[in-house]
Amino acid sequence: MNPTIKLLKSHRSIRKFLDWKIRNELFEELIRAGQSAATSSHIQAYSIIHVTNKKICKALAELSGGQHYVLDCSHFLVFCADMKRPTDAAERAGIEVVRGTTEQLLVATVDTALVAQNVATAAESEGLGVCYIGGIRNDPAEVSTLLRLPDHVYPVFGMCIGYPDQKPEIKPRLPMATILKRDYYEDEQDVALVAEYDDTISAYYQARSAGKKHSTWSEQLKPLFSTKLRGHMRDFLRARGFEMK
Amino acid sequence: MNPTIKLLKSHRSIRKFLDWKIRNELFEELIRAGQSAATSSHIQAYSIIHVTNKKICKALAELSGGQHYVLDCSHFLVFCADMKRPTDAAERAGIEVVRGTTEQLLVATVDTALVAQNVATAAESEGLGVCYIGGIRNDPAEVSTLLRLPDHVYPVFGMCIGYPDQKPEIKPRLPMATILKRDYYEDEQDVALVAEYDDTISAYYQARSAGKKHSTWSEQLKPLFSTKLRGHMRDFLRARGFEMK
Repeated sequence: MNPTIKLLKSHRSIRKFLDWKIRNELFEELIRAGQSAATSSHIQAYSIIHVTNKKICKALAELSGGQHYVLDCSHFLVFCADMKRPTDAAERAGIEVVRGTTEQLLVATVDTALVAQNVATAAESEGLGVCYIGGIRNDPAEVSTLLRLPDHVYPVFGMCIGYPDQKPEIKPRLPMATILKRDYYEDEQDVALVAEYDDTISAYYQARSAGKKHSTWSEQLKPLFSTKLRGHMRDFLRARGFEMK
Repeated sequence: MNPTIKLLKSHRSIRKFLDWKIRNELFEELIRAGQSAATSSHIQAYSIIHVTNKKICKALAELSGGQHYVLDCSHFLVFCADMKRPTDAAERAGIEVVRGTTEQLLVATVDTALVAQNVATAAESEGLGVCYIGGIRNDPAEVSTLLRLPDHVYPVFGMCIGYPDQKPEIKPRLPMATILKRDYYEDEQDVALVAEYDDTISAYYQARSAGKKHSTWSEQLKPLFSTKLRGHMRDFLRARGFEMK
């Protein structure tokens, strides 16, 4: 196993950070590594907001569900899908542009995620820790107001980066046989494999909580799907120019 | 610059591959590195189809716009956003699940992209080359039929992986000042920075084509936005259980 693969496999989310600042040269190196990710037709449909203003950071921490590490980390970033820049550029080049398609929403979302994952890997390769903050979508309209995001730009997730002050265990992933398929999607074995995985996750929590917590994977999924979680996303996106045409 | 950051920054898409096969142990290591990526609330909402059947590969190459490297690479993968597995598991755990929200579409799409980017980085760390195939969305319904994808699963993109038989130059990215912003989204400088970048891209093509090609970034974007590209995505997703509620 080469050092890069070893690094990728050692990922865990970091939610407790030392009070150390990432120096600017390194931070920019992480962003450059991010920009080097593949991008659909080279459109580079993303923007990254580095939040330095403590008031905004505090508001974002609260909006995200009271996640203090948004405030405690060295650098908090909001990764935005950005269809404004490429469509504006095409418009200036002299065409009437089509905006707001579902395809464009997907392309910009994927582009943003690829960049973020490169930033995460680059950060971890320097001994930094990261934590994705999906909670930024709890109130994306307010986030957009705080960060003055224009139409055709939406906040996909945040990311805390900093020097770790914890080393959580690595959470076991689904058995490879469930997620990797040959030629056809077949999930006949999924019930048995997921049951096995439920036991793995339960044992993982029991070991970490001295026997107190023993939730399975399936149990943990229940609150995610029992209600229409973040049911505002459709109307929010539509209002911001992502009409999903 | 550490070797991992150097690796990330040296990414280029590979479209010409040697006739060498990736050995299975290494391939599985790439997938495991992929699985180690962050995932929203640990839902792991993705499946990867490894297409080994030559007939299917040929059909996918054609559907994707005649991209021969889909056939020529060692391993062709189709990365699918998969909300079936987690919602099925939650359902078996005893709740009535909500499916088809816009939020779920985004979560599964992001999860899939993070895994894919880890697989890409792991592959490149072993001297392999990759090429993302967004063309898989040219006819996602046919792709779904070929790969027997069930409802709540959709093909986000493909990926060719193999031993490179070319070393294209690295394509310059947008100036960092356009994509990295401090506290607020401001794009007053974007017109000037994009104009500068247009010159960079034009010079890049001129140098690579002995002066024959000199398209700018903005010019290249025009065909992407002059029509409703992949306008079928909305109806396709809706038909497959991603209603974007």
